[in-house]
Amino acid sequence: MPDSVENEKNYVNASLLIEALMLEDIDSFRKEFVELHPYDQAQFYTGLEADIRPKVYLYLSPEEMAGLFENIEIEEEEYENLLAEMAPAYVAEMLSHMYADDAADVLNELDKEQAVSYLTIMDDEAAKEIKVLLSYEEYTAGSIMTTEYIAISANQTVRSAMYILKKEAPQAETIYYVYVVGDDRKLVGVISLRNLIIADDETMISEVMFDRVVAVSVSEDQEEVARKMRDYNFLAVPVVDFQEHLIGIITVDDILDVIDEEASDDYSKLAGVSDLDRVDKNPFAAAKKRLPWLVILLFLGMMTASLIGRFEETLSQKAILAVFIPLIAGMAGNTGTQALAVAVRGIATGDLEEESMWKLIIREAGTGLITGATCGILVTFIVFIWQHDLVLGLLVGVSIFATLIVATLAGSLVPLFMHKMKIDPAVASGPFITTINDIISILIYFGMATLFMSYLS
Amino acid sequence: MPDSVENEKNYVNASLLIEALMLEDIDSFRKEFVELHPYDQAQFYTGLEADIRPKVYLYLSPEEMAGLFENIEIEEEEYENLLAEMAPAYVAEMLSHMYADDAADVLNELDKEQAVSYLTIMDDEAAKEIKVLLSYEEYTAGSIMTTEYIAISANQTVRSAMYILKKEAPQAETIYYVYVVGDDRKLVGVISLRNLIIADDETMISEVMFDRVVAVSVSEDQEEVARKMRDYNFLAVPVVDFQEHLIGIITVDDILDVIDEEASDDYSKLAGVSDLDRVDKNPFAAAKKRLPWLVILLFLGMMTASLIGRFEETLSQKAILAVFIPLIAGMAGNTGTQALAVAVRGIATGDLEEESMWKLIIREAGTGLITGATCGILVTFIVFIWQHDLVLGLLVGVSIFATLIVATLAGSLVPLFMHKMKIDPAVASGPFITTINDIISILIYFGMATLFMSYLS
Repeated sequence: MPDSVENEKNYVNASLLIEALMLEDIDSFRKEFVELHPYDQAQFYTGLEADIRPKVYLYLSPEEMAGLFENIEIEEEEYENLLAEMAPAYVAEMLSHMYADDAADVLNELDKEQAVSYLTIMDDEAAKEIKVLLSYEEYTAGSIMTTEYIAISANQTVRSAMYILKKEAPQAETIYYVYVVGDDRKLVGVISLRNLIIADDETMISEVMFDRVVAVSVSEDQEEVARKMRDYNFLAVPVVDFQEHLIGIITVDDILDVIDEEASDDYSKLAGVSDLDRVDKNPFAAAKKRLPWLVILLFLGMMTASLIGRFEETLSQKAILAVFIPLIAGMAGNTGTQALAVAVRGIATGDLEEESMWKLIIREAGTGLITGATCGILVTFIVFIWQHDLVLGLLVGVSIFATLIVATLAGSLVPLFMHKMKIDPAVASGPFITTINDIISILIYFGMATLFMSYLS
Repeated sequence: MPDSVENEKNYVNASLLIEALMLEDIDSFRKEFVELHPYDQAQFYTGLEADIRPKVYLYLSPEEMAGLFENIEIEEEEYENLLAEMAPAYVAEMLSHMYADDAADVLNELDKEQAVSYLTIMDDEAAKEIKVLLSYEEYTAGSIMTTEYIAISANQTVRSAMYILKKEAPQAETIYYVYVVGDDRKLVGVISLRNLIIADDETMISEVMFDRVVAVSVSEDQEEVARKMRDYNFLAVPVVDFQEHLIGIITVDDILDVIDEEASDDYSKLAGVSDLDRVDKNPFAAAKKRLPWLVILLFLGMMTASLIGRFEETLSQKAILAVFIPLIAGMAGNTGTQALAVAVRGIATGDLEEESMWKLIIREAGTGLITGATCGILVTFIVFIWQHDLVLGLLVGVSIFATLIVATLAGSLVPLFMHKMKIDPAVASGPFITTINDIISILIYFGMATLFMSYLS
């Protein structure tokens, strides 16, 4: 019973809340609702039927709705519907109470016109911050950072820093790191709240701050940011522009989402799904996402078919040759996918540095040699015992041997080459490598079969 | 130039450090080294040659080495080597200075005897804590939690809580959440340091604490813990035993590792690699990890081959049939992998609840129908134009249609069934589904071909 704690305590008393909404009993509703964690509020809210949902806006202030919206998890297209239920002025005020990065995320899901209209009626200060965040390219540090950080100067005491911190705590996205900037807003240091609390009140910040700050550039890839935060165990990392001015921070909760997203992305590409559809989607939406891949693969498969067509003569003389086509193509596909997965993950996790690429290629050639030899010998024996034909056994065995070497190499070379060309290597997904290796393996197999035709019994 | 900041500032002056080690210049070494972030220290240390590395122990205290070891990232088998270089008493003291969860992680990598011998010479208090952590099952909340948290009582003032916090800050793994416990150590509330700082000094903790604490059970799966922390944006989550006593906390940095691990795990299983080998491994180690899969797949492939062998008669009459084997088997494999990926990720991310499983199956049947019809019609046309044989076109087209429906269903049914049987559905990896679908597709194709043989031109 791993969930015993969960089940005993029911965090959300949903039936009580729904009843209060039905009876328009604002007091009972608020008494229960505002006590909830914003994530639970959001879960309850998105689970409501559309006819009762708008009542929530009547009972909660835009500021309270802001906390809820920061924790919402819905499909992109649903934002539009939810916001359409509220008065535009209410939306604008809610957005201005949200952390700038979360507000920018919401606006990013709307169509451009709609987003601009909310920004127009919004508080100027908030709108300006959000507009800046909206201007950064997707998947960069800039696009996931927030501007609500706490910055102090190096020549002030710990006591005065704590005073600033107390004052800014309600607004800042994190107060657990305080960044130290020079007169020109250049980032010069960082101090954790833990160290501030331990330090003596009269100490100068310059004495206790850590001055080798690890920062990320605003244009850095979000995956790279995630890697740094994981390596350094940071709760937040500062973002600087090209002149090293502090312009924002990225907090660890956003990084959890990035890691999840990127992992799902690599995974779905390996499987040949353009984007992992949520399970509640309808079959048409799911088919729409998968068909592009399937059709491309269909055409690649037709190429393989036409290639085999050239050996129809050989095939009609020795029908038994056809029996081993799926085996050889399948082994090539599997071994290629293995090599691909190692290379793609190596690149994604940063394990694979420039200088180790050649090492990897040589290593993979060796791996192909070993797996090829093992499987080749095994197959030769099995086919010989099954078909009582040593030449056929050798033909299939040697084909497997050669195929595994080439397929393993192809599996690692293709993603490495794409990485060099600055293309996301995960695009060279499983199905592509599989098809390339299908073609290679069939060329090897039928090429050899045609050569040794006369020796086959 | 996304890395401009990185390149300008060189965090680690490696050449200076190595020179200092060579010259046995302890002062220069320490002056530079102790200023570094522990992660950078660990990176430098693990990059050192074995002949020079032991000098580091002479220049750093066990406490300083503890910080470094908490941030180390090496292969499991390397721990033994590193620790063997140090004096056992040094290791024991280093381990007792580490956070209990990190120390337990290190000991977990050693063989049992070795671990016990370090625990024996260790400080009793520290050894006891570590032993408790070592006793929890792998992949549960207990195995990743730490015991260095701060707990206070509800009937004390904010001022006295801050006093406890200041005192315990150097030892605690996080001070950003303070947990409130009753007399029996039952968890009754939580308060963030942010709220403590904002609150008035004389307020009672019971008035400002959040009493609907989200906790995890000690036996809960680490993946489930990760999901909760991501959903609630926690920096730490309390761990309770079956009587709801607070026994530890899990911090977000450990969760980042869990998410990464689980994603890599799912990914490698989809690719059919038992474990993603690091790029610096030799080809024998790599081949050893991949061969088990390849040999299993080889035997499954032989089954497919023997299945086609039964249709040798059909094949020798119409060699052209062989041409489409890889196309049909390939499409079945691809569509099955797509469906599998959606189901596995749906289960992993918790999107897929009990009640939505039937929905998913019906949805996938519909998706298979749509993709099957589209690809089937397309293939019929292509084959007809290419081979001028409508019956052949229809045969291949209808086979693709039937195959895609069955393969899509198989791709989602297999992981769902495994999940029901409490088997990790990711084990039903890509290659397995592909092979099952190979067999199904060949049965459909040759079955139909044998039936309609007489109509083929």
